[in-house]
Amino acid sequence: MAKDQLDTQGVSRRKMMIGTGILAAGTALSQFGGLLKPAQAKGGPTEKWPWPYVKLDPRTTAEICYNEWYRVFCGCAVINSVFSQLRKKVGEPYTSFPIDSFVFLEGGQMGWGTICGSPAGANIVANTIIGPRIAGSPDGHHISADIMQWYSEASMPVFTPKKPRINPAKIVKTTSESPLCHISVGKWMKKSGLSLKSKERKDRCARVAASTAYRLVELLNTWHAGTYEPTSDFSAPSEHGITGQFNCMDCHGDDVPEPPMSTS
Amino acid sequence: MAKDQLDTQGVSRRKMMIGTGILAAGTALSQFGGLLKPAQAKGGPTEKWPWPYVKLDPRTTAEICYNEWYRVFCGCAVINSVFSQLRKKVGEPYTSFPIDSFVFLEGGQMGWGTICGSPAGANIVANTIIGPRIAGSPDGHHISADIMQWYSEASMPVFTPKKPRINPAKIVKTTSESPLCHISVGKWMKKSGLSLKSKERKDRCARVAASTAYRLVELLNTWHAGTYEPTSDFSAPSEHGITGQFNCMDCHGDDVPEPPMSTS
Repeated sequence: MAKDQLDTQGVSRRKMMIGTGILAAGTALSQFGGLLKPAQAKGGPTEKWPWPYVKLDPRTTAEICYNEWYRVFCGCAVINSVFSQLRKKVGEPYTSFPIDSFVFLEGGQMGWGTICGSPAGANIVANTIIGPRIAGSPDGHHISADIMQWYSEASMPVFTPKKPRINPAKIVKTTSESPLCHISVGKWMKKSGLSLKSKERKDRCARVAASTAYRLVELLNTWHAGTYEPTSDFSAPSEHGITGQFNCMDCHGDDVPEPPMSTS
Repeated sequence: MAKDQLDTQGVSRRKMMIGTGILAAGTALSQFGGLLKPAQAKGGPTEKWPWPYVKLDPRTTAEICYNEWYRVFCGCAVINSVFSQLRKKVGEPYTSFPIDSFVFLEGGQMGWGTICGSPAGANIVANTIIGPRIAGSPDGHHISADIMQWYSEASMPVFTPKKPRINPAKIVKTTSESPLCHISVGKWMKKSGLSLKSKERKDRCARVAASTAYRLVELLNTWHAGTYEPTSDFSAPSEHGITGQFNCMDCHGDDVPEPPMSTS
């Protein structure tokens, strides 16, 4: 199978681009280098992409997300802020998507501090609407990478709701330089001096979710309008030979290991 | 709303247990402490839990997962290994779940090295079938936590497929002590001396996904039989006052910070 062959040959994206001259529309990146031809995904009736989308208002979406955080927490609030509107404006297939199943994204998945639920939820939304990169368009993949980088670099929380539950002056802003919950929340707790259980930390996270929903809808609207261009310029697998973030020294200090570069 | 009040009061789980004497069946943990009463989730027709489940064979599931990895990679392979069988044996609501949307879970989400797609996919399956902890049963949440801890402590890959694409002798085993892709893959690359693009690394990840699918189905089968008991004994928010893993010194060295413990 062509995809598999490309993948296991480890052909670099650069080499492929030289080989083909120009990227064909509708191609997608294979895992960590290489190109795939559009593949018809095997699957159910909802596995035909893109799902119907209508332009949404970022501010309205963020307000919904802020309030939903207090019901279902970060990841699920981001998903529901978009899908609840599309259920009303479009209907199926959004109606049958089990949004509330994603409460577990909270706290970097059940409190384990891995990926913050806000980008995790945004990635689910982008890839559910636009589809996976193996099925015709890499834009869901690219929007997700954009969200990861934007989240890491933003002074969070960006968004202030109309009716804040906590005085905005009490919510300090921090830049996580990482999409991980542990690091994002940890840096905020360090600067604020406030605990995980504080009302301020909870409202900060509700606003981070709302900020992410706002940015997500901005990107989806440009994609829907046909004007979306990927902005993320980061790929750890290409640049560093391992999956990862750009903040190597946050954990490794000055002793950043060199990954093996065998091509067997 | 009672849930919100409990949550923002920051009532500890211990205090609540003293207060109520015993945990009522069907209660669930609120975010990082506190108890919630079962809440009827608002939502679509698939947001009634649990979804119908029939006992699956772990080995068959793992074989499907191993082969699916080469089509859709780790997270999506885990999801499809369970849901493709339930589509045939049960039908809806599995038929309308957009499985292939989750290709982006690869490489810790688009190569960013956050949560390994295998536990991320398993968590989606458990919480989609059993439902979120706010909707009647905490078992999906608990099975996900069990998967995170099991994944971190297992000598991976556990599972060897019937027809391996790579000689099993070439696939060394490592223990990640973390559910993060970057750490799981990095420790394996360090021990094996093989690159991210090597055939062996890819087959190792296909087997890690298959191992996780195997474990997931074992847990789902015990849940279905009514004999499931949570085994994970780890909660960073309760034990350390911050979301996180148990391997603090992997990143922090001996200088593990103390999080603020304010209760404002």
